[in-house]
Amino acid sequence: MRTRAQYSEKLGKMNRNLYCNGEKIDRLDERQESVINVMGLTFDAVWDPASRELCTAVSHLTGETINRFNHIHQNPLDLHKKQDMTRYLCNKVGSCIQRCMGIDAANAINAVAFEAQKSPRAKTRYYDNWLKWLERFQREDLVVSCAQTDVKGERLKRPAEQTDPDVYVHVVEERSDGIVVRGSKVHISEASISDEILVVPNRALLKGEEEYAVVFAVPSDYEGIKQVVHFHNNRKREHYQRGIDTGYSDSYVIFDDCFIPWERVFLCGEVEHGGIAALLFALFHRHSYSGCKPAMLDYVIGLAGLAAEINGIEKTSHVREMLSELIMTGELGYSAGYTASDMGKPEIYFPGKGLVPYGPGGCIPNSIYCNVGRCLTGEAVFHEQEILCNIAGGMPATFPYEKDLVNPETRALLEKYLSRNPKIPVEEQIKFWLTFADFTLSGLAASTNYGAYHGGGSPIMEQIAITSQYDIEGKKDIVRAIAGMAPRSSK
Amino acid sequence: MRTRAQYSEKLGKMNRNLYCNGEKIDRLDERQESVINVMGLTFDAVWDPASRELCTAVSHLTGETINRFNHIHQNPLDLHKKQDMTRYLCNKVGSCIQRCMGIDAANAINAVAFEAQKSPRAKTRYYDNWLKWLERFQREDLVVSCAQTDVKGERLKRPAEQTDPDVYVHVVEERSDGIVVRGSKVHISEASISDEILVVPNRALLKGEEEYAVVFAVPSDYEGIKQVVHFHNNRKREHYQRGIDTGYSDSYVIFDDCFIPWERVFLCGEVEHGGIAALLFALFHRHSYSGCKPAMLDYVIGLAGLAAEINGIEKTSHVREMLSELIMTGELGYSAGYTASDMGKPEIYFPGKGLVPYGPGGCIPNSIYCNVGRCLTGEAVFHEQEILCNIAGGMPATFPYEKDLVNPETRALLEKYLSRNPKIPVEEQIKFWLTFADFTLSGLAASTNYGAYHGGGSPIMEQIAITSQYDIEGKKDIVRAIAGMAPRSSK
Amino acid sequence: MRTRAQYSEKLGKMNRNLYCNGEKIDRLDERQESVINVMGLTFDAVWDPASRELCTAVSHLTGETINRFNHIHQNPLDLHKKQDMTRYLCNKVGSCIQRCMGIDAANAINAVAFEAQKSPRAKTRYYDNWLKWLERFQREDLVVSCAQTDVKGERLKRPAEQTDPDVYVHVVEERSDGIVVRGSKVHISEASISDEILVVPNRALLKGEEEYAVVFAVPSDYEGIKQVVHFHNNRKREHYQRGIDTGYSDSYVIFDDCFIPWERVFLCGEVEHGGIAALLFALFHRHSYSGCKPAMLDYVIGLAGLAAEINGIEKTSHVREMLSELIMTGELGYSAGYTASDMGKPEIYFPGKGLVPYGPGGCIPNSIYCNVGRCLTGEAVFHEQEILCNIAGGMPATFPYEKDLVNPETRALLEKYLSRNPKIPVEEQIKFWLTFADFTLSGLAASTNYGAYHGGGSPIMEQIAITSQYDIEGKKDIVRAIAGMAPRSSK
Amino acid sequence: MRTRAQYSEKLGKMNRNLYCNGEKIDRLDERQESVINVMGLTFDAVWDPASRELCTAVSHLTGETINRFNHIHQNPLDLHKKQDMTRYLCNKVGSCIQRCMGIDAANAINAVAFEAQKSPRAKTRYYDNWLKWLERFQREDLVVSCAQTDVKGERLKRPAEQTDPDVYVHVVEERSDGIVVRGSKVHISEASISDEILVVPNRALLKGEEEYAVVFAVPSDYEGIKQVVHFHNNRKREHYQRGIDTGYSDSYVIFDDCFIPWERVFLCGEVEHGGIAALLFALFHRHSYSGCKPAMLDYVIGLAGLAAEINGIEKTSHVREMLSELIMTGELGYSAGYTASDMGKPEIYFPGKGLVPYGPGGCIPNSIYCNVGRCLTGEAVFHEQEILCNIAGGMPATFPYEKDLVNPETRALLEKYLSRNPKIPVEEQIKFWLTFADFTLSGLAASTNYGAYHGGGSPIMEQIAITSQYDIEGKKDIVRAIAGMAPRSSK
Repeated sequence: MRTRAQYSEKLGKMNRNLYCNGEKIDRLDERQESVINVMGLTFDAVWDPASRELCTAVSHLTGETINRFNHIHQNPLDLHKKQDMTRYLCNKVGSCIQRCMGIDAANAINAVAFEAQKSPRAKTRYYDNWLKWLERFQREDLVVSCAQTDVKGERLKRPAEQTDPDVYVHVVEERSDGIVVRGSKVHISEASISDEILVVPNRALLKGEEEYAVVFAVPSDYEGIKQVVHFHNNRKREHYQRGIDTGYSDSYVIFDDCFIPWERVFLCGEVEHGGIAALLFALFHRHSYSGCKPAMLDYVIGLAGLAAEINGIEKTSHVREMLSELIMTGELGYSAGYTASDMGKPEIYFPGKGLVPYGPGGCIPNSIYCNVGRCLTGEAVFHEQEILCNIAGGMPATFPYEKDLVNPETRALLEKYLSRNPKIPVEEQIKFWLTFADFTLSGLAASTNYGAYHGGGSPIMEQIAITSQYDIEGKKDIVRAIAGMAPRSSK
Repeated sequence: MRTRAQYSEKLGKMNRNLYCNGEKIDRLDERQESVINVMGLTFDAVWDPASRELCTAVSHLTGETINRFNHIHQNPLDLHKKQDMTRYLCNKVGSCIQRCMGIDAANAINAVAFEAQKSPRAKTRYYDNWLKWLERFQREDLVVSCAQTDVKGERLKRPAEQTDPDVYVHVVEERSDGIVVRGSKVHISEASISDEILVVPNRALLKGEEEYAVVFAVPSDYEGIKQVVHFHNNRKREHYQRGIDTGYSDSYVIFDDCFIPWERVFLCGEVEHGGIAALLFALFHRHSYSGCKPAMLDYVIGLAGLAAEINGIEKTSHVREMLSELIMTGELGYSAGYTASDMGKPEIYFPGKGLVPYGPGGCIPNSIYCNVGRCLTGEAVFHEQEILCNIAGGMPATFPYEKDLVNPETRALLEKYLSRNPKIPVEEQIKFWLTFADFTLSGLAASTNYGAYHGGGSPIMEQIAITSQYDIEGKKDIVRAIAGMAPRSSK
Repeated sequence: MRTRAQYSEKLGKMNRNLYCNGEKIDRLDERQESVINVMGLTFDAVWDPASRELCTAVSHLTGETINRFNHIHQNPLDLHKKQDMTRYLCNKVGSCIQRCMGIDAANAINAVAFEAQKSPRAKTRYYDNWLKWLERFQREDLVVSCAQTDVKGERLKRPAEQTDPDVYVHVVEERSDGIVVRGSKVHISEASISDEILVVPNRALLKGEEEYAVVFAVPSDYEGIKQVVHFHNNRKREHYQRGIDTGYSDSYVIFDDCFIPWERVFLCGEVEHGGIAALLFALFHRHSYSGCKPAMLDYVIGLAGLAAEINGIEKTSHVREMLSELIMTGELGYSAGYTASDMGKPEIYFPGKGLVPYGPGGCIPNSIYCNVGRCLTGEAVFHEQEILCNIAGGMPATFPYEKDLVNPETRALLEKYLSRNPKIPVEEQIKFWLTFADFTLSGLAASTNYGAYHGGGSPIMEQIAITSQYDIEGKKDIVRAIAGMAPRSSK
Repeated sequence: MRTRAQYSEKLGKMNRNLYCNGEKIDRLDERQESVINVMGLTFDAVWDPASRELCTAVSHLTGETINRFNHIHQNPLDLHKKQDMTRYLCNKVGSCIQRCMGIDAANAINAVAFEAQKSPRAKTRYYDNWLKWLERFQREDLVVSCAQTDVKGERLKRPAEQTDPDVYVHVVEERSDGIVVRGSKVHISEASISDEILVVPNRALLKGEEEYAVVFAVPSDYEGIKQVVHFHNNRKREHYQRGIDTGYSDSYVIFDDCFIPWERVFLCGEVEHGGIAALLFALFHRHSYSGCKPAMLDYVIGLAGLAAEINGIEKTSHVREMLSELIMTGELGYSAGYTASDMGKPEIYFPGKGLVPYGPGGCIPNSIYCNVGRCLTGEAVFHEQEILCNIAGGMPATFPYEKDLVNPETRALLEKYLSRNPKIPVEEQIKFWLTFADFTLSGLAASTNYGAYHGGGSPIMEQIAITSQYDIEGKKDIVRAIAGMAPRSSK
């Protein structure tokens, strides 16, 4: 297992293929610092006795102790621990911990490559390739992001129907030594600070869409890849320092006729497994949200509670009702993930067949519970912002700039008029409101909401998953029996 | 374990203390039939191989196999099974199965009597009395209802402040051989068909409210008790028979200076334990809702699905979105209960102390998860009715009467104009809409909503439980660390 | 103008074509009494000096003073008065006043017949026929219901695509002296107590659907018509009398090859005008909802306020917030109707053309404001029931039967335990809760919700009207200008 | 009437009392430019023939044509025009037009000073002073902001109970020539670009709070005033220019023992009128929201419509339903303001007295309708952001930087992958998404939401206004009559 320093050192040696604001930038560019700082916590955690047990696992391949973010879940306990590790680490940043995409993609591909290799027309030994990559992933303690979201072009058209066939990443050439891919994956979190990228399809695929059924791994600085990076960093503070600097990036990862050797290809052309890869990554990722979203709620509850305390209204029924709503959202989301973990099995849902065994035995969380939890917490984010706005009042929206707060001509007056709770030092109140504004009134705040809403699948995607997988016919049978109607089978 | 017939036979021998619509009625009165029919399912279940394992348990007192409804939960698995048994049986009636109050009260009192007996000022051997009663409860397979809700008078006043001290049930006299109680418990489900009634306080109690801290058991037909009964039965059908007849009753259980011998008294005067009895019954009961409310949602989903199928709109995105909402509510409620079961421990929350051991070892579900689940599903019922109304359209509200449906002058015309889906026989469609109307457009339907909303505690009671027990200060600590504020301890 | 007595006397003389519960019934049948009682208020109102001015109008045809329910709106003031008259009269019953369908259909047909007569292929002198009928409608002060809703069969199919062509009312034969129509209109309120019925199409129509583009008037007891009637009456009280007896009916109005002479036909085959007739009746009717729904909210606010007062919680912030929500719904609905009235013009919206003159000059309310108001108040009804349930608590759901309340064995005990507010006599409290239960816990209550939700068009119908008529492109232009995009015209 | 240039020229001559980011800045500082640009539109409008009639009025004092923003409403038509002018001008910026505070405060003070001057203990000739100021306000075409919101300190304590008495602006000394005031008004929009500031109390006041009942006018650069300014400007664009540059500012306006001569004092010590000044400014301001919030919705509808068009999903039922919701919110808000205008009278509501004449005849909009409209549209803003997020998808949150969009190494690739609708040039799509992000994902966007939510009074303030002024007892009477209860008077 690596340290934060080793991870950072390797980033410094990578090829320059990041574009930002009109220039090529280095992976240790100043704007990357707070992003790397967040990821660094996932390395610190395994060396910290307080979290070592939670954040490490024993590799089922090698028997070595590895970072849990690189583990293939073997049983429900692993799923429980992934959920709890995620919540624990997110609580250190009040936001996303960034490293879940790798573990979620790895667990999905682990199953898909295993099944696809059975295909008589498999283009290569998908699962054998995968195991080699996986072993290195664990051994070298890599940070891996997952590239799933295509640009999608005309939204109501399928990949094969698009005017521009490149709006979904696809194979444009098959060679004896590998494949050439073209297209762009977008909104790819942490791609600018990851060692490698796992690429999976974006959606269920039909016959005729074989070129889109492709899964592979590449180094993030690979030839033929350009990343156009967008940063979501907090503005630096000069006087009222935060407890931790956090930041986020995402990339347009552009595959400009990028060559991938066969040994890095884990699926190529099997449309059914391609669709499963898409759904399975989404499923594991929605399970991760059952850790991070409750953690976000923890943060929102803390912000709401402190805002109410500073405003002197913590005991009003109005505020208690809003706190209760926030707690409900967070803990219902957590319990959905908890139940999904506990019911985890090496099975997936097939339309028309129900749950069937899939993969080499890795534990897959229950899909219905993952989806209902993710949908609940994703849809709630704007209402959470409303609650924070309601409790805070207008103050954070017009808060003085740091330099005015320390300007001798204005400092005393501002401190006098900013203080609302005589029991709390005004400096503490100022620090609080600055951080409150970070979470509610910054551009970063808004993009966080978009991530929480659409990341891992928009609410409508969860609705589709839920209604297509739930046993609605079985519920009709309950009604038929009670209504005295003929049973389903006799119809 | 008894049979349905043995249970009913015993009811027939009880004293006549039921009042309904101006007259005294027998316990085997016609209006009681469908109510007894529902309860009978809990007896049938232990003799049916399909449900015997789920619906029985091994008594920790005697080692005998008993009806699970009379069991003291020994571990999380017992809680899981109680939840699943409840959902399973409720699915047979599309509504409440009625017998959870006994098990929930018994589990609460089991802990309270144990702790209260330790008090140096205990009026009697509460726990010894209790164990004797409990052993008989299990051995004789009794149906027991729990009387908690007082009439409460002026709602913002405490018991001791009321103009009429009797609006909360209280001890008006202590004698050497027992106590005399006065007051009325209201909305007491199944009291008219129960063998006995367990009485617990309605709320947390303060010093000076000792007379209200009373817990005891009485036969339902006891001297000094009058029950004024309200029935919630479906109207009988003559032509289009239901698959099962269901009905419900509740009672004003009036204690008109009722004498209770000491051996039936399990608490008398210990206000702290009295409050715990109130909260603990509510807690176990909210856990039961994690079984029955998902079952209700199962029924609602089935009704919505069939209505959409008959109306030919099942595939519209509008309907899928509503089905998804219903599924989310049901399964989030289930997962909250599942998590509460899995985290069950012989501990309760004390304000200022957090979780502390309580009782002789019976397993108590996690309070936060019980409450968030109950609150979610309770608050959802009117919206569920809206969804059903939306999908059904106006038809069920103006559906022809049964006799018009069979009148030769109108039958053919009505069948012609009632049919919406040529693939489903019109008789099936008619049976469906009649049952749909039972659930949405009858007086019974409306009272079911009131029960689902307020039963086991109104949403505001769950909000109070949630915000008073949740670790909000811990969440503030997360914010303090990230904001760079001083830690709590140093304040 | 007639009196209540004259109206009722005429009903007594009509042919028996009402079917209810398996038998033919008379129009003065006991079940019709409270329905007729409600309609009677619209006759009383013109003789009562307090309401005479509001509830009468001067006929633009004859210059005579007529009941405003039979008036063709000449200007915005007429629309204002129709809205206020409706609210005023509905406040007397806490529900629907029943007579708006006639005025709404008459105003729609008045415009449609005028325009359709211009058609060179008109089958008869539609508008001349109409003026004759209208003159009698006003002179004889008729009660007229409007039959619009077809049974619709398979909901996603158009009329011409149905397996059974009769699921929309249509012309099956054209003769020299008239037409023969077949089909059934359902949920037709007040048809059992109306003098005549106006029939209009149910939806926009396309070429090839000419037989469905038919508008005509028939006496309610006409040959070839059968009504299957469903009553929504409150249960009679014996001891705690209501202030007014109210009830409602609706009918399946079945046209069993019913012959209509040409002089009663106002449209026959012009599909475009047929669609306008459908939309225009709906528009006028949605305008009526801007009177009745605020009146329903007035009643709900009163119920909520009194329930809170009796429960002693009127001053809590929780209750104030809910009262505020109810007031908002009612007054926003009212203001939408008010604005629609004030902007009324003899114009209608045509897709692709915008607002164009239509009809002989009658004043048509603004469609957007009618629709936004109707949609708001329609969608709110289940939430209103939730608020009432929340404030009331469980009491009304389990309230003792009247006979128990007067039984000497239980009366004193029940009165003792039912009283919650010592400042209000218990008899008043009892009367209140019985009436509260009428509105919330009866079958009548539930069917009222269905009527308020779907009557005049389900929320989705208003959404379609809103988005298809609103100038969304104009709003895009605002964005284009601010974004610096090219203007629309240059595209 | 002035021109934009004259207005700006005067700003350039004012004293430097603006503090921003640690330094004193000039009123023509670069950061003020886009703020001044927005205000400039209100000057342009009177010279533009398209808006001259709407945006001017005839002064009731002088008979001169004046900018309508400086007019005292004489009749409902003036209120209608103020509403429409506000919507019209806000449509040019997609946000706030900034100048309503002056007109709203002027109309409030006009009434209050008139009534307060009648007091035998009036400290000066309030109304005479006011008329002099008003005449100059109109003649010199001044831009005036209104300072109402105090810092308020401990939120549940009244002004007189605060630890620091200065947390509400108050009179600390009365002299023969004037008064000395101390305190700070916060979130004061446009104060940094206004000519003068009108100061009014923040809340209803009680006896003993006389020093807080103070109303006066001061130049914005007055001695004794410091403004700490916060800017809400969009980031400048270099390549994809907006159609208009907009920006906003607000100030902490600090009265550091500021001397106000009597001739500028319009109220001093009359607590009842002080409370009315607070409520009346809020009332006029909530009426202004009935113009600006529908305009904001117009903008949101345009954004949503274009986002859906570019994404190719405009026809989906999902999107139509969301568009319908947005239209409903905007037009219900508009119709509430329209109705409030139409019912405008020179009357205000007094607790216990109902509506009573107040002021010299200026037209005051109906309070209930102003409040229900403002509450609806204020509470909706976060949900509007959710709808925009839902329709847009993740794209705007991770949109490339301008310089990447024009960097030759990335431009072609980005344009290829950003295009979603082949019918719209990609440059147009880019401009759209950049502007979309301005409104949804910038710090400015978030502060706009806070303004829309809390500005003019938080939703809870409207709820209080609604429930305290609405005739709830009258609604109870409706219930009493129908329930057969005794009428109110006889109780």
